[in-house]
Amino acid sequence: MSKHDIGLVGLAVMGQNLVLNMANHGYSVGVFNRTTSTTDEFVSKKTDEQQITGYHTLKELVDNLAAPRKVMLMVKAGPAVDAIIEDLKGLLSPGDIIIDGGNTHFDDTNRRTKEVEEAGLLFIGTGVSGGEEGALKGPSIMPGGSPAGWPHVKSILQDISAKVGENNDIPCCEWVGEAGAGHYVKMVHNGIEYGDMQLICESYYILKHALGLTNEELYKVFDEWNRGELESYLIEITRDIFTVIDEETGDYLVDKVLDTAKQKGTGKWMSQHALDLGVPTTLITEAVYARCLSAQKEARVRASKILSGPEKKFEGDRAQFIEDVRQALYASKLCSYAQGYVQLNAAAEHFGWKLNNGDIALLWRGGCIIRSTFLQDIKAAFDKNPELENLLLDDFFRNAVEKAQPSWRRVVAAAVELGLPVPSFSAALSYYDGYRQARLPANLLQAQRDYFGAHTYQRIDKEGTFHTDWLHERRLDS
Amino acid sequence: MSKHDIGLVGLAVMGQNLVLNMANHGYSVGVFNRTTSTTDEFVSKKTDEQQITGYHTLKELVDNLAAPRKVMLMVKAGPAVDAIIEDLKGLLSPGDIIIDGGNTHFDDTNRRTKEVEEAGLLFIGTGVSGGEEGALKGPSIMPGGSPAGWPHVKSILQDISAKVGENNDIPCCEWVGEAGAGHYVKMVHNGIEYGDMQLICESYYILKHALGLTNEELYKVFDEWNRGELESYLIEITRDIFTVIDEETGDYLVDKVLDTAKQKGTGKWMSQHALDLGVPTTLITEAVYARCLSAQKEARVRASKILSGPEKKFEGDRAQFIEDVRQALYASKLCSYAQGYVQLNAAAEHFGWKLNNGDIALLWRGGCIIRSTFLQDIKAAFDKNPELENLLLDDFFRNAVEKAQPSWRRVVAAAVELGLPVPSFSAALSYYDGYRQARLPANLLQAQRDYFGAHTYQRIDKEGTFHTDWLHERRLDS
Repeated sequence: MSKHDIGLVGLAVMGQNLVLNMANHGYSVGVFNRTTSTTDEFVSKKTDEQQITGYHTLKELVDNLAAPRKVMLMVKAGPAVDAIIEDLKGLLSPGDIIIDGGNTHFDDTNRRTKEVEEAGLLFIGTGVSGGEEGALKGPSIMPGGSPAGWPHVKSILQDISAKVGENNDIPCCEWVGEAGAGHYVKMVHNGIEYGDMQLICESYYILKHALGLTNEELYKVFDEWNRGELESYLIEITRDIFTVIDEETGDYLVDKVLDTAKQKGTGKWMSQHALDLGVPTTLITEAVYARCLSAQKEARVRASKILSGPEKKFEGDRAQFIEDVRQALYASKLCSYAQGYVQLNAAAEHFGWKLNNGDIALLWRGGCIIRSTFLQDIKAAFDKNPELENLLLDDFFRNAVEKAQPSWRRVVAAAVELGLPVPSFSAALSYYDGYRQARLPANLLQAQRDYFGAHTYQRIDKEGTFHTDWLHERRLDS
Repeated sequence: MSKHDIGLVGLAVMGQNLVLNMANHGYSVGVFNRTTSTTDEFVSKKTDEQQITGYHTLKELVDNLAAPRKVMLMVKAGPAVDAIIEDLKGLLSPGDIIIDGGNTHFDDTNRRTKEVEEAGLLFIGTGVSGGEEGALKGPSIMPGGSPAGWPHVKSILQDISAKVGENNDIPCCEWVGEAGAGHYVKMVHNGIEYGDMQLICESYYILKHALGLTNEELYKVFDEWNRGELESYLIEITRDIFTVIDEETGDYLVDKVLDTAKQKGTGKWMSQHALDLGVPTTLITEAVYARCLSAQKEARVRASKILSGPEKKFEGDRAQFIEDVRQALYASKLCSYAQGYVQLNAAAEHFGWKLNNGDIALLWRGGCIIRSTFLQDIKAAFDKNPELENLLLDDFFRNAVEKAQPSWRRVVAAAVELGLPVPSFSAALSYYDGYRQARLPANLLQAQRDYFGAHTYQRIDKEGTFHTDWLHERRLDS
């Protein structure tokens, strides 16, 4: 028997589907799972064409891999990854490659890249997006780690990835950057997904409560939106959701779903690291917080009986307002991606990674949840100017926001007056309005800090650091 | 020579001033500093009445303390604290008390309390707020750690703390809770300080740019605000700042200060832990992000030349609008404190601390930056109902917000229409509007997650966990 092209450890659904995807592309795959019965059961179901072989020990698996050996881990992120890496260090040879395809924090991948390289091996930490179905049919793959490892895994990862482009031949898999860069990009992808979903929820809430749109009408609105610049997987499935009937009651199913959002933590990670980097990723953080608030369902029910809101009704042109909401969603989404890329750039500078922002947009064009035509425009913007410091400064997007602005402001103002919560719409707008100010009120804040804590301040008219005894310099009216 | 009541390690300004404060209250203090010349110089300046003795080794200091020995550390937060604790473990006897008064992360204090207790000693981690002047004249002190240590340090810490109340006899120092609770409360204090400062900055920006108020007019506005329910140290110093003239140019100094806010990180810590706890501390996080955006001065100057805003001018009743801004500030501030207390409660539950929320409000009434009459109202709310789950549900505050609501909404809507960034005002309003909704749009979000990732959902009408094959159940128009 000839040796396998790759080995995969961890046969939960994501791991199984990646193996099938590889086998369906003609690769020979050796597999190992801690619970060996899972391995046996999985292998027993393979077709004759699929070259999949199960092993009951890690050593047998490694012994049957072609050199340089490639072992992909699809196990629970955390200590389990470290444990298997430790075992593999004793089994692999210099130049062999360990690939972590789990939902790993970039800090861990930074550390492991270093540790694995010090052991003479190569390490690749890769984001894999698209869920179970993506894993089987073509996920978005975002690999980073040891650059020397990439040529050895490039063809297999690109072959199994989603494809985009007119000829369906552009893989949604390209080398991202050093160390934890791949998992970082995956985290940013997920954070942007949080933002996109929250923006759609706010649009839904406004249309439902300001205009009283029915699910049938919401279906038509999202269907139309999906034919324009908002075209995307998330708008498409939102459209679909409004058509699904609950068999038991005959009502629309969406109205039966409990409004408590769950999360797996990557949006949180992104927000926490934005705070560490000192970059204002406000929209995604508000989206994370919106999930937190939604989860406090019982507290909200209690509060709803006590706290009042305005009694106003929407008065205005309904068709125009629907278009206003569409523009607000588009402009807010643009701010969200702009913030995401600002964070990516700051992280790259912080960690010393070289990232290709245009390629990253391309990785997300297929296979993953945030796939959209919009990403092609982002790719185009970075192709025009690879050094673009903020997407909002690109001509195409600047024009889009300027066109959307009046609508965007009308929607936020209307929501505020009607008492409808729009945390992400307003965070995006505040960011836009703050970012375009040469002067913000932080001069007062610095004066306060110097007043109460002698923290000093800088001046606009000369270099240096200054301190003033504000208390004794003040001149109050008597 | 009789032994000292307490020893203090670390003679930077905060440490020196705390020693002087203790000595001025009649306590005998032994001091040690790593650079011994600092110790000698400091002690050489003491008055005859001040019982302060310097030591050149930690051992000499410890040998001259009365039992149980109390050693307070005022050194740079981080490894230096661990190093001194390690040294002290070898010098102290069972039951002796180590006090960390530095700007320490609560995680470290949680860990150190355990480690120090395991060594047979007691540990107190305490927040000390009020800056250099507070340290000398009476800071706000927030001690937590080993409960058995509190009776031994209570009198000295309460004596040197700020005092409030009609007879100026209520100390701003009370036991907070176990382990890192003291440093946690200090962190929340600082986060609330970030929020208060940002809200004042937004008020300033709106008054200056929507109404074109001059510094003289701003002085009058803040002077008036300081006579009402907003009365507080921060409003007072803001008022003062608008009166200070730059001697060199003859212009108002506040206009010469560079608008790039600095930060020391406690607001960031609070936001990061809010995300860990899953509680929506949105306003403070937006305040942290606003500092981040302000720090990107050069990027903003570039963006200001490219990105446009609305050309509208404010049209309306100017006096009414000033009052509207005051109400918006008050209501937003209330949401900020409500969020802060929700986070405190969640942290207490997470770590198993028993916190007295009313007492905590009292600790902040004097000595520290956020001191205000408002805190007395908070104390009253928790005295009425110690189990109050959210300040907004207290009758006094509910009435205040209901009264402020129309103004608050007018201000946010006007800022949005005029293109003035109000991240914290809008975050507060979105929180209020979200919190009082029995139903939020997270039902759609859960449907999306179930659609693309089979993450399942719950229902409003029955128990259980459900999954739907949305793709195949959808009914699109042909």
